[in-house]
Amino acid sequence: MNANTELESLLQAVQDGRTSVEQGVEQLRDLPFQDIGHTKIDRHRMLRNGFPEVIYGSGKTPEQLTDIFEHMKGRGNVLATRVSPEKAVFVRERIPGLEYNALGRTLTAMEQQVEPRANEVGILTAGTSDLGVAEEARVTCEMLGRSATICSDLGVAGLHRLLGTLDQIRQYSVLIVIAGMEGALSSVVGGLVEQPLIAVPTSVGYGANFNGLSALLGMLTSCASGVTVVNIDNGFGAACAACKILRAIDNAHS
Amino acid sequence: MNANTELESLLQAVQDGRTSVEQGVEQLRDLPFQDIGHTKIDRHRMLRNGFPEVIYGSGKTPEQLTDIFEHMKGRGNVLATRVSPEKAVFVRERIPGLEYNALGRTLTAMEQQVEPRANEVGILTAGTSDLGVAEEARVTCEMLGRSATICSDLGVAGLHRLLGTLDQIRQYSVLIVIAGMEGALSSVVGGLVEQPLIAVPTSVGYGANFNGLSALLGMLTSCASGVTVVNIDNGFGAACAACKILRAIDNAHS
Amino acid sequence: MNANTELESLLQAVQDGRTSVEQGVEQLRDLPFQDIGHTKIDRHRMLRNGFPEVIYGSGKTPEQLTDIFEHMKGRGNVLATRVSPEKAVFVRERIPGLEYNALGRTLTAMEQQVEPRANEVGILTAGTSDLGVAEEARVTCEMLGRSATICSDLGVAGLHRLLGTLDQIRQYSVLIVIAGMEGALSSVVGGLVEQPLIAVPTSVGYGANFNGLSALLGMLTSCASGVTVVNIDNGFGAACAACKILRAIDNAHS
Amino acid sequence: MNANTELESLLQAVQDGRTSVEQGVEQLRDLPFQDIGHTKIDRHRMLRNGFPEVIYGSGKTPEQLTDIFEHMKGRGNVLATRVSPEKAVFVRERIPGLEYNALGRTLTAMEQQVEPRANEVGILTAGTSDLGVAEEARVTCEMLGRSATICSDLGVAGLHRLLGTLDQIRQYSVLIVIAGMEGALSSVVGGLVEQPLIAVPTSVGYGANFNGLSALLGMLTSCASGVTVVNIDNGFGAACAACKILRAIDNAHS
Amino acid sequence: MNANTELESLLQAVQDGRTSVEQGVEQLRDLPFQDIGHTKIDRHRMLRNGFPEVIYGSGKTPEQLTDIFEHMKGRGNVLATRVSPEKAVFVRERIPGLEYNALGRTLTAMEQQVEPRANEVGILTAGTSDLGVAEEARVTCEMLGRSATICSDLGVAGLHRLLGTLDQIRQYSVLIVIAGMEGALSSVVGGLVEQPLIAVPTSVGYGANFNGLSALLGMLTSCASGVTVVNIDNGFGAACAACKILRAIDNAHS
Amino acid sequence: MNANTELESLLQAVQDGRTSVEQGVEQLRDLPFQDIGHTKIDRHRMLRNGFPEVIYGSGKTPEQLTDIFEHMKGRGNVLATRVSPEKAVFVRERIPGLEYNALGRTLTAMEQQVEPRANEVGILTAGTSDLGVAEEARVTCEMLGRSATICSDLGVAGLHRLLGTLDQIRQYSVLIVIAGMEGALSSVVGGLVEQPLIAVPTSVGYGANFNGLSALLGMLTSCASGVTVVNIDNGFGAACAACKILRAIDNAHS
Amino acid sequence: MNANTELESLLQAVQDGRTSVEQGVEQLRDLPFQDIGHTKIDRHRMLRNGFPEVIYGSGKTPEQLTDIFEHMKGRGNVLATRVSPEKAVFVRERIPGLEYNALGRTLTAMEQQVEPRANEVGILTAGTSDLGVAEEARVTCEMLGRSATICSDLGVAGLHRLLGTLDQIRQYSVLIVIAGMEGALSSVVGGLVEQPLIAVPTSVGYGANFNGLSALLGMLTSCASGVTVVNIDNGFGAACAACKILRAIDNAHS
Amino acid sequence: MNANTELESLLQAVQDGRTSVEQGVEQLRDLPFQDIGHTKIDRHRMLRNGFPEVIYGSGKTPEQLTDIFEHMKGRGNVLATRVSPEKAVFVRERIPGLEYNALGRTLTAMEQQVEPRANEVGILTAGTSDLGVAEEARVTCEMLGRSATICSDLGVAGLHRLLGTLDQIRQYSVLIVIAGMEGALSSVVGGLVEQPLIAVPTSVGYGANFNGLSALLGMLTSCASGVTVVNIDNGFGAACAACKILRAIDNAHS
Repeated sequence: MNANTELESLLQAVQDGRTSVEQGVEQLRDLPFQDIGHTKIDRHRMLRNGFPEVIYGSGKTPEQLTDIFEHMKGRGNVLATRVSPEKAVFVRERIPGLEYNALGRTLTAMEQQVEPRANEVGILTAGTSDLGVAEEARVTCEMLGRSATICSDLGVAGLHRLLGTLDQIRQYSVLIVIAGMEGALSSVVGGLVEQPLIAVPTSVGYGANFNGLSALLGMLTSCASGVTVVNIDNGFGAACAACKILRAIDNAHS
Repeated sequence: MNANTELESLLQAVQDGRTSVEQGVEQLRDLPFQDIGHTKIDRHRMLRNGFPEVIYGSGKTPEQLTDIFEHMKGRGNVLATRVSPEKAVFVRERIPGLEYNALGRTLTAMEQQVEPRANEVGILTAGTSDLGVAEEARVTCEMLGRSATICSDLGVAGLHRLLGTLDQIRQYSVLIVIAGMEGALSSVVGGLVEQPLIAVPTSVGYGANFNGLSALLGMLTSCASGVTVVNIDNGFGAACAACKILRAIDNAHS
Repeated sequence: MNANTELESLLQAVQDGRTSVEQGVEQLRDLPFQDIGHTKIDRHRMLRNGFPEVIYGSGKTPEQLTDIFEHMKGRGNVLATRVSPEKAVFVRERIPGLEYNALGRTLTAMEQQVEPRANEVGILTAGTSDLGVAEEARVTCEMLGRSATICSDLGVAGLHRLLGTLDQIRQYSVLIVIAGMEGALSSVVGGLVEQPLIAVPTSVGYGANFNGLSALLGMLTSCASGVTVVNIDNGFGAACAACKILRAIDNAHS
Repeated sequence: MNANTELESLLQAVQDGRTSVEQGVEQLRDLPFQDIGHTKIDRHRMLRNGFPEVIYGSGKTPEQLTDIFEHMKGRGNVLATRVSPEKAVFVRERIPGLEYNALGRTLTAMEQQVEPRANEVGILTAGTSDLGVAEEARVTCEMLGRSATICSDLGVAGLHRLLGTLDQIRQYSVLIVIAGMEGALSSVVGGLVEQPLIAVPTSVGYGANFNGLSALLGMLTSCASGVTVVNIDNGFGAACAACKILRAIDNAHS
Repeated sequence: MNANTELESLLQAVQDGRTSVEQGVEQLRDLPFQDIGHTKIDRHRMLRNGFPEVIYGSGKTPEQLTDIFEHMKGRGNVLATRVSPEKAVFVRERIPGLEYNALGRTLTAMEQQVEPRANEVGILTAGTSDLGVAEEARVTCEMLGRSATICSDLGVAGLHRLLGTLDQIRQYSVLIVIAGMEGALSSVVGGLVEQPLIAVPTSVGYGANFNGLSALLGMLTSCASGVTVVNIDNGFGAACAACKILRAIDNAHS
Repeated sequence: MNANTELESLLQAVQDGRTSVEQGVEQLRDLPFQDIGHTKIDRHRMLRNGFPEVIYGSGKTPEQLTDIFEHMKGRGNVLATRVSPEKAVFVRERIPGLEYNALGRTLTAMEQQVEPRANEVGILTAGTSDLGVAEEARVTCEMLGRSATICSDLGVAGLHRLLGTLDQIRQYSVLIVIAGMEGALSSVVGGLVEQPLIAVPTSVGYGANFNGLSALLGMLTSCASGVTVVNIDNGFGAACAACKILRAIDNAHS
Repeated sequence: MNANTELESLLQAVQDGRTSVEQGVEQLRDLPFQDIGHTKIDRHRMLRNGFPEVIYGSGKTPEQLTDIFEHMKGRGNVLATRVSPEKAVFVRERIPGLEYNALGRTLTAMEQQVEPRANEVGILTAGTSDLGVAEEARVTCEMLGRSATICSDLGVAGLHRLLGTLDQIRQYSVLIVIAGMEGALSSVVGGLVEQPLIAVPTSVGYGANFNGLSALLGMLTSCASGVTVVNIDNGFGAACAACKILRAIDNAHS
Repeated sequence: MNANTELESLLQAVQDGRTSVEQGVEQLRDLPFQDIGHTKIDRHRMLRNGFPEVIYGSGKTPEQLTDIFEHMKGRGNVLATRVSPEKAVFVRERIPGLEYNALGRTLTAMEQQVEPRANEVGILTAGTSDLGVAEEARVTCEMLGRSATICSDLGVAGLHRLLGTLDQIRQYSVLIVIAGMEGALSSVVGGLVEQPLIAVPTSVGYGANFNGLSALLGMLTSCASGVTVVNIDNGFGAACAACKILRAIDNAHS
């Protein structure tokens, strides 16, 4: 049931007299989120854009994180990103059953196991140092019910590494390409394959890299057409975009 | 036939003795492009990433543009972007049958008409001033065989304009959201719909807009998850990305 | 009647059966704007945030401007900003009765004359070169029904000019301070007066001024507390903010 | 008594012979501040711009902070911002009765309790992570004798959260909107309400957020007219601006 | 008579009854400048900081420039900087006797000829392309009663050119060093001479020069201690600073 | 004879009494350059760093250019870069025998024909739009006595174009790689070949290209080790660097 | 004896045969510095530009600092800037008699006491937080034999504090104005006094201050003419520039 | 044997039937690298661009570093850059025989001692604080079989230090010039010598140095022609470029 249908139901209920005008106004206000003081949990998001709300861990206190996990549990997979090891320890001591991915810095409550389906999302990294971002992307895909595979260390300075894995790369429905420094990997892959490709610049590098700006600009100005870009180090966002595409494919089938 | 198959055929021919080693090296070199002096026309691109080569008109002389159009004609749709009115006049005087879109600044030779299919790409703009970029995106979609519809002037300062067209927006398989200034439209739409969404920052605005930087940063840091971004004013790139997704949908069907 | 009330009326009409559900959905969509193809005129804006929609002239063709003026006429004052002299000539030839302010680059259809009230908005400029921005602000105030006075050339390099007009400055209900270069005027005035003060950085200056960036940063980091800032050269925005404050004062009275 | 009146009194006293010329010069110098060595306490500020001097805690030693608090006590509310927990402990051990707000990092000596008045300042945040800035704003309002209410977690990615609280939001005389990432909340709220609105960009976010630059540029280029902006994370400045507007309203009444 | 003395006189006159309190306030306001509508001519500046007010020509209309020249004439040398050739023609047609320096873009009314004194200001340029800025500096010096000499084309890529003129360079009381590109000339000269040295970055260069930013940063971070810097292309400002130093020398003598 | 030897000769002549101390000082000053007023022609540069002085045409008047050409003629090849067509016409009307390259914007007086030697400098461009920079590099090489060959349009979006010309590319002693947009070509080539490689970012592209900044940062952060970079669009500088390497090779031979 | 005289002496000795050519070359090389391995102590600097070499402490190891102090002792005052407390402890344990200024982070060996002379350098700060930079400037002045006085906390938000100390400020021969945030103090002081004024931007502030960039740009674009600027937080450089001016005054007297 | 020859051998083997088509495809994939999970070791790089793969230590865990060292040992010199002391201890405890350079932060397994050859690479630094980058460059040269000599502390503020070592500097085949602050050393040296010169900007400095940006821009815009630049602090990259030039010299000999 999408949000529009729900709106129609509400109007219908008002017209039928089952719901008073005041109640209608009230429901409109209450439905979409649950206010727990510091945070409004957005229960409606799944209806609107197809994803559960995800907790952005940075800038939240360990207490707030624990609170949110407690209010969200029992309603499907819960994912928190950018969770430091210290905060993870704090929350896990209070809420059992959470899993922490140290490389990707994600804290998760997995209630619905993903059924592995082959070749959904291929995650390519230019270097070993990009693996943290790749893990964030992989875990996010799994929390959203998709399977993802990481192919690491394919940077263009050793083009043969990339060309040698091209056959494998071409099997995935959607590609996420993660690279720091000049971010050239997305241009080269984008010129060689025909799948949708989401590029993630990383802050790997130094000097004129400017915390990922060089890779970001490189990917935005890529000479390969059709490459899209998300924020620096944003493995989570890339995974969401990839899953949106997979869902569009599924929707077209059904 | 994808590029990999072609490589296998060539190796097979070498093994069978139908092709000598020298010829093999030669073919490897000759196949993928045609050298016309100033430009190497990339005939292979369609095989590799599924799109014909597109001519980037800015920075090329009218003579070079004419030359390239002449060498590419008769092989499907040809698209040149960023073509100034002056250059368009020059080329059209020499090559009949080209069409010029003044708002989108595209010059095209359409050989295969696109069959209109409903609801493929929805192109949303925040303001009337973003229409040039929207037109570039629309024409590119059509040259790649897809139909696209523009819904203009939906900026978030008048949220009711957007909410009132939400039903229509939700019909499209893929969305392109074009906005200048702070680029907030992509965040708001991204929070309301579930389709793949490609955001295009435009250089519309002034002052601290810095030629589109404000919209670019706004879209990259969007609080709506799964929004991907292309370069400032890059309607062409957004259209390519949208068409890649449509093809992924088609491929999954077939 | 504010937007909320209108929503309640609509819901009431649906409940009463005077309006069907389908009509309700339709009205929700139709009310707030009028679609004239390239532009959606936001008729609802006055209801929502108290101002008529204003036309941002830059990036629109003369034909589009003319079109929009024609559709908006007869419904109160109409203001277009950033209108080049060439466009102004074009539109005025087609629509009689418009006024063009060459310094402020505004094109206006004044239907409701402003009754001059003393001391509403004081507009201070640091130099003569800031007068264009000041004019844009003054005209905007008048179109929104407020009277505004410009005091020009008060830059802090000649502090006595400022101190000598301090008595006058203290009469206005709201102040707009316009300055380029280092923008210090807003800090000095902000430290001397107690009224609400809106600072407008201008692109006047050269070199490390970077098109107004120096004044913008200076005003944002002002050591005088309570100074707020709008975009570079944005006289229009400052006037809107000033008029919002005046309306808040009026509302509190009534 | 405003500063101008005081100047007239002084001149009058000189004319009457009650004050010698030398004394006049001396008084002009002594009146406005008290020199305690490292700092000149600005006793005159309340007269000039209506606010007591506020202590900017960052970059001052714990000893200096203690010193200043001691010299300012007994003269009304005293507020220090950007005070680290370590400094707060140091000062509170030496001066009893101070209150420390850990989230907002404010240290205060409240001598005049604020009488709660409804609906003065509404403080809206886009996310839970923006609460520190919101607390700084709230405490500042109270120190200046105004009451302020925080509505948190209204980010535009979940538009229903915002729309559901719109009625409440419309009650406040002045709004402060605090958001990081792309800062779109100020555009959307600015398009929906008619009150004066002060936007505070925060450094919440990562990557191309560039420590709040994305939100700052987004708010400055907002398509909603009449939004004004203060410095990144500057909850204090926004509160001062809001209180200036409230005082303008009060002044107009009286 | 400096500004302080003047203030004492005024107070004295008030005490003596020669001036009423009202007149005192009035005089304080009237003395320092003359209001000609768009501009407040700062007659007091000479008293306060020792220089006549100078007209910043950019951003003023030809009519405004003419107006200001007319009001300032007969009161000593008048200097306008950044005057385009077109504006210069306009003003000179209306006011006879003005001189225009096309390279330095200055328009001047010289009433007091400078008596040439040897070795006051030495102006060094790195390249021929920096001569415009050098001319602006030279003319400004002369308008302020100082003599200046230009030594051009001493860029460090040909170090012998610089070393060969070192003896001459060491004769000047103050040095202005003008350079674009990387601005290294100021570091090298600053390491070789002991005079006060004012560096002027210019926008000469291209690419990563970013309109003078490279030279500006280079001069600010100069490894030669005691180099001070003015704005990009600001020959006028450098000349003012040099003349302030010469006056300090003269004052110490007298 | 290098500059050191020359210095010894001068000291020897002073010791022998053939040159007086005063003359010694004088010669030291006069030798290295010839002062023609606005410009000091650096005759010594060939001795010092092996290249004749080159005229940077931008920012010089046509008259100055003509002057410099006249004073430099008869002393070997003369090269002026960044000469606009208008200036070229002016100079060529006054000085016969000069050649103008419209694409590379160079004006040259070739006195010593370069003997073509195979495979000295290979100049690779990513796109047709980079040809202007490539021409500047090629002409510079020839003026310095080296032969250079341009291979254009090898951008990585069509990797086969590059791989197909790899054999040819590997023949050159030094490579110059010219690319705009993300500048990825230098990373890919740098990973495939072993020669010295000088990368030139160009301002080709738009949006987040920021006039070549994206390519500049991309090349500086290249993951291929040993790539060096010159300024944006600086074909001249790259050619000089390439010729320095060729001379180092020649010197080692001899 | 300046560097030029020394050169002549050397040439004379060569001509007289007192010095051989080889010795001449050797002396030219040996004179100006002493190589202690990691560092070349520049003994000549005093001759050339009138200041002893100063040690930049940041980025040097404690051992290197100790080494350099040991080699420089006994030759006048020695000053090291940017010395962290930890390094200071290390060096002082090994070299007795050094003084450490914790606020200004200077480590000094004072061999020649400065005779206090009144009114040489006035150091003005906008806020208490700028005192560290002021101390660095004050200590540097003393090490160079000049006396300096700090007047702190004169920021323009409390203009009366500044105006009340104006008489005192006008006594100094040279002014150093130190301010963070928007740096407006230098504009206001520059408009009120006639002495040479050196502005030092500081990194005090937050948000859009960008580590001092806002103050730097503000001071560079100051509307007060003749203000010169040094690097952010560079109290040392400002002091050197001030002392150069004092020396120029002294030289003119003698 | 270069990569091309190897390709021909493979094709030949396929034609001869010694290798099947499937094996051919397999070998093409396997040859160039060895996959150890997180990293693909690029064994082919030596063949392709003449250097062994180098380990970028930053961003890799100590475990990953140990792993890579273990897989690379016994195949020539192994170099890891940007290795923190903590990581170095970890790896050296597990793999005996590694050497750690604390200043240059390199960890190395030297299997082939470099035979010292005179005058190959001269590494010049502007200050003592640049020595870390210089050490990284020196160690890299040695790992690549070249000898390198460091001449430190030659900054242009003490020009005599540089001129006194000019004879020595002119002996090296290739120069690496390392400087922070304004980076002027590369311009001055580049104007005095004729060898290939690679400039390395360093992050030494503060304030408007912006972590090396000032030196980077200064070197890119150098007025000395033929200077090439690598990334900020990239001693490794400069050494690679220098060694490429030395190899080009060697190749030309053989």
